[in-house]
Amino acid sequence: RAGMAAGGVLLTGSNRGIGLGLVKQLLRTPRPPAWIFATCRDPAGPRAQELRDLASKHTNLVLVELDVADPSTITKAVKIVEEKLNGTGLNLLINNAGIYNSEASLERVDAEEMIKTYKTNVVGPLLMAQAFLPLLKKAAQESTEKGLSCSRAAIINISTMLGSIEKTPQCFFKPVISYRCSKAALNMLTRCQALTYREAGILCVALHPGWVKTDMGGQETGWSSPEEKDFGCWLMRSSP
Amino acid sequence: RAGMAAGGVLLTGSNRGIGLGLVKQLLRTPRPPAWIFATCRDPAGPRAQELRDLASKHTNLVLVELDVADPSTITKAVKIVEEKLNGTGLNLLINNAGIYNSEASLERVDAEEMIKTYKTNVVGPLLMAQAFLPLLKKAAQESTEKGLSCSRAAIINISTMLGSIEKTPQCFFKPVISYRCSKAALNMLTRCQALTYREAGILCVALHPGWVKTDMGGQETGWSSPEEKDFGCWLMRSSP
Repeated sequence: RAGMAAGGVLLTGSNRGIGLGLVKQLLRTPRPPAWIFATCRDPAGPRAQELRDLASKHTNLVLVELDVADPSTITKAVKIVEEKLNGTGLNLLINNAGIYNSEASLERVDAEEMIKTYKTNVVGPLLMAQAFLPLLKKAAQESTEKGLSCSRAAIINISTMLGSIEKTPQCFFKPVISYRCSKAALNMLTRCQALTYREAGILCVALHPGWVKTDMGGQETGWSSPEEKDFGCWLMRSSP
Repeated sequence: RAGMAAGGVLLTGSNRGIGLGLVKQLLRTPRPPAWIFATCRDPAGPRAQELRDLASKHTNLVLVELDVADPSTITKAVKIVEEKLNGTGLNLLINNAGIYNSEASLERVDAEEMIKTYKTNVVGPLLMAQAFLPLLKKAAQESTEKGLSCSRAAIINISTMLGSIEKTPQCFFKPVISYRCSKAALNMLTRCQALTYREAGILCVALHPGWVKTDMGGQETGWSSPEEKDFGCWLMRSSP
């Protein structure tokens, strides 16, 4: 866990749910990262109030506008992050932003819904990794650590049990076709990233965070709140 | 194999490669289907010459224009098929059409390529199943068979070993990111279809046809030609 004393960590979709929970936990660690880049689509909007409150109290927390479905915002975000890091690398990229349509049964799901979900949940993480790859590589090269780890250089793609083909029969109470298909593809993407980027010293993992009480997971039905959830422990599990 | 004496079978991407191979084998079976609907994007074009030659000799072979990436052509195809079937159902839908970009490494693949491949390889099969569902249900209801089988009512989605997340490390010599992600998603879609449509008596399977010498698989490197390939046997394996 000492490994979390990273130079730079970037998260997408960090204004609420699991993303916001992760930001809070990163701020709370004994040796917090030098920079936490908390990105979301509208950091100036009403849904990012809690994030802004945190930023006013923590100088290492930087809010950055970023929509993973809009490549031009990714390019702009890279520049902002590069400037703050001032020549050092980015240790951890957490692709947390994702969309979910609870009404997408096989009967009702359409092409538009399928494409929209794929764009945010799969193409987004792909473009993020491509864009931040030079900064991740730099972090891996600068590190005195050997092997792969979250404190050296890593990409964490937030996935879900609902993306597991094997486990589908056990959790088909909500069909959510567009979401399931996108997350199965994200798991595949992560495997390809792991095989491609390991030579550069970058760890790539897809994680099922469990069912968390969020806007997406449901406020009544989630198993734990993003506050209670032990994300610190959970981040450690991603180390090989 | 006697089961292949179906009333109606429909294939996409049937003008070349595995699709054309399947058409030839269906025509050659001892009791060929009453109707084989061989669909492709341009049945009047130069790349469908062999299919047209076959149709001139076999009255049960019907060529139908269909681009799985263009929903309006699917709607039109359903009408043509319904008319020919004249009140009976469709027994077998083979979603064979697919695209592949051999240059899509993690470094080079972009959003457009990802979306285009997903549209044809995943959304296409989804829309096809939705559109032909009433005819597949009709075939299942009309059948005297019990249980699930290709001769009663079935959807076969042509997948690939390259879509297996588990097997990725063994076959990563060609990264083909857009293709792999789409096929992992197609495998998930098929699982969801199997769970949803089984109550209607429709078998849903994803199949890895092996490496076949086609335009997509490569003419020199494929393991068998679509002629040699024992698709008959291979179709049987899909029965539970």
